[in-house]
Amino acid sequence: MPTLRTALLQSSGHPGETAHNLKVLDEAAGRAAAAGAGLLIAPELFLTGYAIGDGVRRLAEPADGPGGRAVARIATTHGLAVLYGYPERAGGTGDADGAIFNSARLVGPDGAELANYRKTHLFGDFERAWFTPGDTPVVQAELGGVRLGIMICYDVEFPENVRAHALAGTDLLLVPTAQMHPFQFVAEALVPVRAFESQLYIAYVNRTGPEGDFDFIGLSCLAGPDGTVKARAGRGEELALGEVDPGLLAASRAANPYLGDRRPELYTPLT
Amino acid sequence: MPTLRTALLQSSGHPGETAHNLKVLDEAAGRAAAAGAGLLIAPELFLTGYAIGDGVRRLAEPADGPGGRAVARIATTHGLAVLYGYPERAGGTGDADGAIFNSARLVGPDGAELANYRKTHLFGDFERAWFTPGDTPVVQAELGGVRLGIMICYDVEFPENVRAHALAGTDLLLVPTAQMHPFQFVAEALVPVRAFESQLYIAYVNRTGPEGDFDFIGLSCLAGPDGTVKARAGRGEELALGEVDPGLLAASRAANPYLGDRRPELYTPLT
Repeated sequence: MPTLRTALLQSSGHPGETAHNLKVLDEAAGRAAAAGAGLLIAPELFLTGYAIGDGVRRLAEPADGPGGRAVARIATTHGLAVLYGYPERAGGTGDADGAIFNSARLVGPDGAELANYRKTHLFGDFERAWFTPGDTPVVQAELGGVRLGIMICYDVEFPENVRAHALAGTDLLLVPTAQMHPFQFVAEALVPVRAFESQLYIAYVNRTGPEGDFDFIGLSCLAGPDGTVKARAGRGEELALGEVDPGLLAASRAANPYLGDRRPELYTPLT
Repeated sequence: MPTLRTALLQSSGHPGETAHNLKVLDEAAGRAAAAGAGLLIAPELFLTGYAIGDGVRRLAEPADGPGGRAVARIATTHGLAVLYGYPERAGGTGDADGAIFNSARLVGPDGAELANYRKTHLFGDFERAWFTPGDTPVVQAELGGVRLGIMICYDVEFPENVRAHALAGTDLLLVPTAQMHPFQFVAEALVPVRAFESQLYIAYVNRTGPEGDFDFIGLSCLAGPDGTVKARAGRGEELALGEVDPGLLAASRAANPYLGDRRPELYTPLT
């Protein structure tokens, strides 16, 4: 099975300026496609910005809103899948009136929606003030024979969430994030351990630089199931590239049989 | 609350020679007590050796067997608690005839047994050939106001096990191990992440050097709940010392509210 070259767009764009951020995404998609990537991943809330206060409510849109349609055009133009974070205005059956979710949406190279995920583990008072948590822990899609899963930032810090994806067959977990000082331990140490313990790839794609009260730390990475880091960005704006290799995944799973050696009957205190 | 100075005995003793290993333990207990330690931790199967083939069956003993009584004398002589790994001969109610467990037993400074744990997650064909897995995932004891938990080697590589301890209030997880080449990623990266994600201390105490088909890698450590390593041994025989600080534990838990931010209703796929 061929490898999936994956591009990690480490950028904060211009918080509050959706049109500008779509231009940054379009330019990155062009460079990623030229480098042979089949998938481009942008950070958490990349479409609008993260620390934009009331802008979250003003700029939120449904999954198929104008920003989503613009991303579909970018994916079609450059012929690759794109994952982007955005504030999602509720509109589905069962959604509470006025709810806004911290979401990430995956669009295929033909512009069609492949998946939409709503962050289940909100971080801190800031996010709880603006967002409603999602209730669906495992959201997946298929791309070129690789099973993709989606979660957002704080979600990945809970081993339970990654384990649920591994048990559902996720090969590559896409994690747009807004990871800030002083949590570089998460980017540097925790993400590779998550990939190893649950035997999957993790693409962790961060914002960068100061924004409101936050200082985003970059350090995006593609972590492999063998515990090695396949691509690692620095602290600034960067487009990082790495290979997701189904052959390496199969070999690593055979050498590290964590999923088969689990004893689920002993884990009832967790639920 | 006072800190608990903890001593990590990184040693393989002489595999197959219980009397020699008790002498090594006695000497280490003397040094640990002189350095102010209240707790000494020896590696997995330290009493007898790990790769001793049929010796496992020959040297196995009940929890209160001659080796256990000798350890109680060592603890009493030096006035500190001692955790040691040993092959446990079945004898309890409900135990299968002839079963041997890969166990770790904690003896208090007065020589009384504080806890006995049977490894629940056996590693590889080697251990499955000799041992029966235990069925009690969380075993705890109290020492100087610190709640201790026990697991063994491969157990700690499963985040579910450490999480169950954290939810049960474990402050310091004692993990005798027999970690071998090429798994240094576990000692170096995974153990500190476990401590951070579940907000407890982990004392990971390894064997060292070649034994049978294995090459033990040392690198014992005391990992803190803040993601830092408080003590780290090298590759050879060593007695490492570190502080378990209840004040740091409380501050770290307040700053990293993982346990409170869990959403157990989403974790049912794990059980």
